[in-house]
Amino acid sequence: MVDAATVAAAMRRAIAESADSQGLSSPNPPVGAVILDELGEVAGVGRTQPPGGPHAEVMALREAGDRARGGTAVVTLEPCDHTGRTGPCSQALLAAGVSAVHFAVGDPNPAAAGGAATLRAAGVDVHESVLEHEARRGPLRQWLFQRERGRPFVTAKIAATLDGRVAAPDGTSQWITGAAAREHAHAQRARIDAIVVGTGTVIADDPALTARRPDGTLYSHQPTRVVLGLRDVPPTARVRSGPSPLLHVASRDPREVVAALPDALHVLVEGGPAIIGAFLAAGLVDELHCYLTPTVLGAGRAAVDDGTVGTLADAHRFIRTGTRGLGDDLLVTLERRD
Amino acid sequence: MVDAATVAAAMRRAIAESADSQGLSSPNPPVGAVILDELGEVAGVGRTQPPGGPHAEVMALREAGDRARGGTAVVTLEPCDHTGRTGPCSQALLAAGVSAVHFAVGDPNPAAAGGAATLRAAGVDVHESVLEHEARRGPLRQWLFQRERGRPFVTAKIAATLDGRVAAPDGTSQWITGAAAREHAHAQRARIDAIVVGTGTVIADDPALTARRPDGTLYSHQPTRVVLGLRDVPPTARVRSGPSPLLHVASRDPREVVAALPDALHVLVEGGPAIIGAFLAAGLVDELHCYLTPTVLGAGRAAVDDGTVGTLADAHRFIRTGTRGLGDDLLVTLERRD
Repeated sequence: MVDAATVAAAMRRAIAESADSQGLSSPNPPVGAVILDELGEVAGVGRTQPPGGPHAEVMALREAGDRARGGTAVVTLEPCDHTGRTGPCSQALLAAGVSAVHFAVGDPNPAAAGGAATLRAAGVDVHESVLEHEARRGPLRQWLFQRERGRPFVTAKIAATLDGRVAAPDGTSQWITGAAAREHAHAQRARIDAIVVGTGTVIADDPALTARRPDGTLYSHQPTRVVLGLRDVPPTARVRSGPSPLLHVASRDPREVVAALPDALHVLVEGGPAIIGAFLAAGLVDELHCYLTPTVLGAGRAAVDDGTVGTLADAHRFIRTGTRGLGDDLLVTLERRD
Repeated sequence: MVDAATVAAAMRRAIAESADSQGLSSPNPPVGAVILDELGEVAGVGRTQPPGGPHAEVMALREAGDRARGGTAVVTLEPCDHTGRTGPCSQALLAAGVSAVHFAVGDPNPAAAGGAATLRAAGVDVHESVLEHEARRGPLRQWLFQRERGRPFVTAKIAATLDGRVAAPDGTSQWITGAAAREHAHAQRARIDAIVVGTGTVIADDPALTARRPDGTLYSHQPTRVVLGLRDVPPTARVRSGPSPLLHVASRDPREVVAALPDALHVLVEGGPAIIGAFLAAGLVDELHCYLTPTVLGAGRAAVDDGTVGTLADAHRFIRTGTRGLGDDLLVTLERRD
């Protein structure tokens, strides 16, 4: 028997581990798993590999080897019970001889669910809803959202001065925010499926839209680059070359971006102001990341341009979920107020 | 002998006590004092009274009575040595028989300084620079600034959406921020000497510019109300009636506001956008209070309007000094980056 504190610590480790699968596992959920041996020591840690590769449980079982026998599996999502490109995790856990399984979130996918029942029927001690709230707010969040709402979770990013400006009157805008904020924003890009900008941004700024480390090297995962707008993407645009596909959605409607990305779990909208405004107006901003730099311009381009708003009651409302300093800048994270 | 921890605790209490004199003591410094008896117990606490009234040391000595004899005085500012409308505090401390005096900040005013020397000459054990940094950053800050720079310390207040808007396209603006933010802003008004708005704000919004508690009652201290601009203040404007004077500075130059308030230690500029912009352009914003509400408008009036800014390098730069939640809103405080 493993005590509750040990299981909770293992679940938090599984959640943390699964973060590194965000973006890589899509359209599969980024799951984390920890195998504890009979004494409650960590014997293996795993996370979902890219599609076609092993699930988290299998990765953790491989690392645990014989130590899994009589041990405990701690998993962020209910182990799958179906045979897709990989065999069912429920069978892998039984074959390894684990005596207990604790998971956080029940699988909402009818085709994959049933793992708990299979394990119980085979005599395994199964506990569900372990730290479920934490797990739902963690790396599984966007996948669960996609299951429930049938579209990717959309984060919009704003990097602005305290008075909401993203460029000075002469168009200068690099860099509004500092190095720590840019580093954080690039790390976010490395965990999402697609990044969206408008044709105006591509023409004006010619961004690469890659996820880069501070030294300029590319992260192993690169988001699909999506350009929204009716204008052409210039033949020499940097988004046309580089490590990930380019998708040009020749429309002004953000709903067409979402429709064009059926496998995406998490989409990041980076601008410009009219694109952010269009996503807001379409009700397609689930989360907002505001990087605020401690400067005031008093002139220049506003961070968000939404022509549909006429009066204060029309304002797009959010709930603040976090505030943190990033160097001189401030990152305020918010969620849609439903 | 009183130990250092007891003195430090008393100094922090003296600093906290002095906050209630901000706005009331001007042009004198808001000082706090604590008298510890021979055993180190708090025997009296005092703060500077309005001009002509007793200084902090005298208030604390009155409360301490005979317990001051052989005790310790802990004061945020060096006790004064001159006879103004009140007698010198150095003499009051000697008459009460205190054996030790700890103060934080030496008096930069040549006419008032010398208290430490007088006390030492009389055999009192005098310690200076006790928690000096904390005291300088506390309620004495604006008075010290006024001594050093010859003008009041200016705080500009912005209450805006996350995208820097203070009104929707139809002009609606009440209330951008929530009750907790408004309560905090009114408590600030009760601690400053003067509040500044433009004629445009008076004509558009007809604000009372009083410092009110959540129940609508007035704080005991009310700031002088200053209106800046060339247009007339309407005869029926609410700023013309009420508890404090109205000063109309018929100019567009913020320097004239400062010049018109020679006794003020702390001035709060509340808007509108062009007035905030004019103070920024004049280099007259020492501190910024940004109340940010978790909404996005995407249209409407920007929080700051400064026509002098052309390029990003012209941005007014600040250093973030604090971030706190106020209900749903966020208060970001910043200081000028010199």
